[in-house]
Amino acid sequence: MKKLINDPARVVDESVEGFGQAHADLVRVHTDPLFVVRADAPVQGKVGLVSGGGSGHEPLHAGFVGAGMLDAAVPGAMFTSPTPDAIAPATTAVDGGAGVLHIVKNYTGDVLNFETAAELADAEGVEVRTVIVNDDVAVEDSLYTAGRRGVAGTLLVEKIAGAAADRGDDLAGVAAVAERVVGSVRSMGVALAAGTVPHAGTPSFELTEQEIEIGIGIHGEPGRRRIPMAGADEITELLTTPVMDDLGITGEDQVLLLVNGMGGTPLSELYVVYRAARRLLEGRGAQVTRSLVGNYVTSLEMQGASVTVLRLDDELTTLWDAPVRTAALRW
Amino acid sequence: MKKLINDPARVVDESVEGFGQAHADLVRVHTDPLFVVRADAPVQGKVGLVSGGGSGHEPLHAGFVGAGMLDAAVPGAMFTSPTPDAIAPATTAVDGGAGVLHIVKNYTGDVLNFETAAELADAEGVEVRTVIVNDDVAVEDSLYTAGRRGVAGTLLVEKIAGAAADRGDDLAGVAAVAERVVGSVRSMGVALAAGTVPHAGTPSFELTEQEIEIGIGIHGEPGRRRIPMAGADEITELLTTPVMDDLGITGEDQVLLLVNGMGGTPLSELYVVYRAARRLLEGRGAQVTRSLVGNYVTSLEMQGASVTVLRLDDELTTLWDAPVRTAALRW
Repeated sequence: MKKLINDPARVVDESVEGFGQAHADLVRVHTDPLFVVRADAPVQGKVGLVSGGGSGHEPLHAGFVGAGMLDAAVPGAMFTSPTPDAIAPATTAVDGGAGVLHIVKNYTGDVLNFETAAELADAEGVEVRTVIVNDDVAVEDSLYTAGRRGVAGTLLVEKIAGAAADRGDDLAGVAAVAERVVGSVRSMGVALAAGTVPHAGTPSFELTEQEIEIGIGIHGEPGRRRIPMAGADEITELLTTPVMDDLGITGEDQVLLLVNGMGGTPLSELYVVYRAARRLLEGRGAQVTRSLVGNYVTSLEMQGASVTVLRLDDELTTLWDAPVRTAALRW
Repeated sequence: MKKLINDPARVVDESVEGFGQAHADLVRVHTDPLFVVRADAPVQGKVGLVSGGGSGHEPLHAGFVGAGMLDAAVPGAMFTSPTPDAIAPATTAVDGGAGVLHIVKNYTGDVLNFETAAELADAEGVEVRTVIVNDDVAVEDSLYTAGRRGVAGTLLVEKIAGAAADRGDDLAGVAAVAERVVGSVRSMGVALAAGTVPHAGTPSFELTEQEIEIGIGIHGEPGRRRIPMAGADEITELLTTPVMDDLGITGEDQVLLLVNGMGGTPLSELYVVYRAARRLLEGRGAQVTRSLVGNYVTSLEMQGASVTVLRLDDELTTLWDAPVRTAALRW
């Protein structure tokens, strides 16, 4: 294993420390327990948004802390849920008196730990609501999940709910917007080659030079099936068709198309996938009115990509377009 | 070779087509010859900025086309200079009557082709000046270069010269600002593993599981030396010390620190490198007042990173902070 790290046991702490130094205008890093809050937290009167999960998916979640998106992110160890004793103080730290929304990817450990943290914060007088993101259509249930997994759609929930909080929606309102995004977003991914978790030292799974895995999870957990390597258009169709089918995409729809890199695939290839996915959506008559292409919800240096489609309406479009100022997403 | 492409001969065209679709609010793509211009080009009265080079370094250069940065980017084939018959029409397309600055990374093919294109544009009545970026301190002369290579510092030249053009500097003024950045910026990189050029089909070079290459070029051309794998702090010192020495960094300096990923290294590791490089700069008494961390000047899916330091003054800082609106850099 070759990695730009000093010690597998220290990589998350050192990385988050560097992140805090590089983005001191946007965030503050709290150590022991480890969490990241926006520099001006808590924002009085605004609903606070907290997300988190295992590390290794950067820029998710700390890269999305800042005005118009998350108020706090709680990084766990690599591919390991953060514990309630980190999530709870992050929650109270960003409560500006209007309560806090937890945005949680649907993995059993995350769901349980955020639930416990919500109870701890509630005991401190902070009202918490929770939204569970489960956009991955590849599999029902999985290694770490009851039900579908939460993947790249999470960033769309964070952005749009963040804009709702920013415009002054109350906790029930922000939660309702977040739930509406969850109900309208679906994803599916592919892996060409695995990443390596530092403390494991070997790749999370093995694929031969002729094999890819359709429906891969962001921790390398199994997808739908392994198939022989194919062209980008064909692979993209295997990802996009189930997403469109699950959403029931028709000629009536305006959509946001996110092509997300898993960390080790060149940007040039992500745009090849984007081109193919867009053509498929347009083939059903849908209009792609918003787009995002890049490495946002990664799996270390995994080679691969995912396709995410969000059905838009005027309100979601307006919230998507609202200003955002974070390390990884800014306009 | 497993890549998300359809055909090695079509990957650049398809990728740029997807890029143009995803960012139609920012850019227009011209095909045959292939180049990318900002959507509102030419901007009357403003100096036009044109850059380009072989593909495979995305988001460089097309990702930096937009308000406050480049007016046009000319992508060549993978790792292959664009030809004068593409550079020249890109140049005339963005001339708003104030002339055009060519920003060229120092590779022999690029330098010659941009020179020929400048002559062609001149024959059409467009005044062109050229600045050559040569920030890589790793080697004097190389596989494709007389003198030092141009690497990640290029994006700093493009951003800062773009801001100078935006505030209304004339061609000589924009060129002078660009030259000042070139004179104040140095870089050095490391590779842990090579990327694969699609039409080649095999990695550009081979490193064993125990070996890394210090001073690597962004086309995989040889660096200073191969050494056994080491910790991130030690590797970062091998990159940062020559950069600081070449710049003559002392306690008087305010600097911008860019830690750039080569495409296949997780963002978490780039922040570990950032933390180490920052400590080295601060160890000399320098102040890191601006920072950028991410995959900006890549080498396909190469695993590795580079450290770039730019000595700042008030004017360069103001120009760096000026608004920019491109696919890959926006604030």
